Amino acid sequence: MQESNFKIVESDIPQVSDGEVLVKNLYLSLDPYMRGRMNEGKSYAEAMRISDVMVGGTIGVVVESKSPDFKVGDIVLGYFGWQLYGLSHGRGLLKIPTSDVSLSAYLGVLGMPGTTAWVGLNMIGEPKAGETVVVSAASGAVGSVVGQLAKEKGCRAVGIAGGKVKCDYVVDELGFDACVDYKAGNLKENLLKAAPNGIDIDFENVGGEILDTVLPQLNPHARIPLCGFVSQYNVDQPYALRHFDAFLISRVKLQGFIVGEHMDLWPQANKELAQLYKSGRLKYRESIAEGLENAPKAFIGMLKGENFGKQLVKLADL
Amino acid sequence: MQESNFKIVESDIPQVSDGEVLVKNLYLSLDPYMRGRMNEGKSYAEAMRISDVMVGGTIGVVVESKSPDFKVGDIVLGYFGWQLYGLSHGRGLLKIPTSDVSLSAYLGVLGMPGTTAWVGLNMIGEPKAGETVVVSAASGAVGSVVGQLAKEKGCRAVGIAGGKVKCDYVVDELGFDACVDYKAGNLKENLLKAAPNGIDIDFENVGGEILDTVLPQLNPHARIPLCGFVSQYNVDQPYALRHFDAFLISRVKLQGFIVGEHMDLWPQANKELAQLYKSGRLKYRESIAEGLENAPKAFIGMLKGENFGKQLVKLADL
Repeated sequence: MQESNFKIVESDIPQVSDGEVLVKNLYLSLDPYMRGRMNEGKSYAEAMRISDVMVGGTIGVVVESKSPDFKVGDIVLGYFGWQLYGLSHGRGLLKIPTSDVSLSAYLGVLGMPGTTAWVGLNMIGEPKAGETVVVSAASGAVGSVVGQLAKEKGCRAVGIAGGKVKCDYVVDELGFDACVDYKAGNLKENLLKAAPNGIDIDFENVGGEILDTVLPQLNPHARIPLCGFVSQYNVDQPYALRHFDAFLISRVKLQGFIVGEHMDLWPQANKELAQLYKSGRLKYRESIAEGLENAPKAFIGMLKGENFGKQLVKLADL
Repeated sequence: MQESNFKIVESDIPQVSDGEVLVKNLYLSLDPYMRGRMNEGKSYAEAMRISDVMVGGTIGVVVESKSPDFKVGDIVLGYFGWQLYGLSHGRGLLKIPTSDVSLSAYLGVLGMPGTTAWVGLNMIGEPKAGETVVVSAASGAVGSVVGQLAKEKGCRAVGIAGGKVKCDYVVDELGFDACVDYKAGNLKENLLKAAPNGIDIDFENVGGEILDTVLPQLNPHARIPLCGFVSQYNVDQPYALRHFDAFLISRVKLQGFIVGEHMDLWPQANKELAQLYKSGRLKYRESIAEGLENAPKAFIGMLKGENFGKQLVKLADL
């Protein structure tokens, strides 16, 4: 994928009809799942067609309202995609408070990525104190929350990330017990050192060779919340997994999930995440690209791991 | 593996001490899991060493008893392995009734294989009426029970088996809705025809290429009870799985299990299986080799799919 696969199109700001609101988008969330929508073929969501607006979560401000439910100046979490303005009947728009935390957090630690971490770890991982939790893409929007939640549960948290800078951040800032730099080579040996008692939970964000290295190190009755395959979204040939036998040898439970199918768990997740975040115990980092025109470059970079923390695009000032 | 990897050793029949019983084994069960015990390296059970007696479930008759719990003539289910006599303190020996069904059924449909089918299908598969259940090694000791239990639950049962004779048996005798002959080629297309509404449960006995063909045909929220990898036990290079992305695309739950870790479910499983079997609704077929000297040949043949139904060795007459 290249920037030339994207095109910026200008059109008129839409007219607002009765019951509708017009939102000026302030932040756009960039997330790995978007890459899957760009493929033909089976996915968990309908594929986009060429010339569709790219999908994506957004934070924006209501600039015109003919809806009784919203007034000008309301800050709303929406799903308007890669565009500067969005028109809505109000369904799916969530008003968010403006005073307590930075608005962009609602696209990250308090939004879909944070909730993904909470749901996967708790619902599928079922962590118990003393267990070892490994998470790939550990400095990212989901992984960083997984490790910190694992620590809250009394687990040993081991990250996997690309490069010394990210690994240092994961240990020194986020408080993981260890972090393995997959770009440094010897992943197997370094992971054995970082998780000397074996792995009880592998929160899987990347798939491919990293997953294949984790599998033989799983303990009996290990669990794998499977959340993403970021290593596989942009390749021609999928990585062929050699250590699938570990699922039987260690009687592993694996479950693929998307957080949008577990809306019943969002209120509890968001409450816990907000408490931890506001108390300063849940740390969080963002990479913010400036301007819609830089979204393709930021997105492609994120799929290569060039971002550091949650990737956003700032579209406009409040 | 070859017959020359086995050796028959004669030794004296052991002396019976206080509290012990001597059992003459009548039937030996041959099961794919035994192949895993013969490998070096990590498994869910301790590897055997060279010159150990091969492990295995047995049905036998007590021929001498210095235990208050057993008397001469009692029929017992044990785990004496590949030998003609076994000595026991009585722990792990289960007395079984002699009048109602053939003794060998306690090594098959009413024993470990039948219970494996019941536990995997119900505990992990959670079948609902109208769903499609696919099971590989469908004419075997586990698979044949899986499909028949799925039919009892109101599911569409689709078998995968090797050769027309086995497939005809699976449909005509066991009552599956369809059976795909993996040896006939075009597995993908034939499976699409046999499971036109997609696959909700894949009871996995074989792994490898068959599993890789099943994965893209899974429906959203499909479940995979993972019970064995018989296609992989006797190969130098494990098959590398290409369609692992299906676990995310279809939000699949997979769980590897061994039935011995779910003893709490055995009473209910055995009660239901015995009821179905005695009423004639649970059909069951055996391949019986004659004599311990033929066990290696029968075992190697079973790993190649040369058996037809549950593989046993008859060691002695009652």
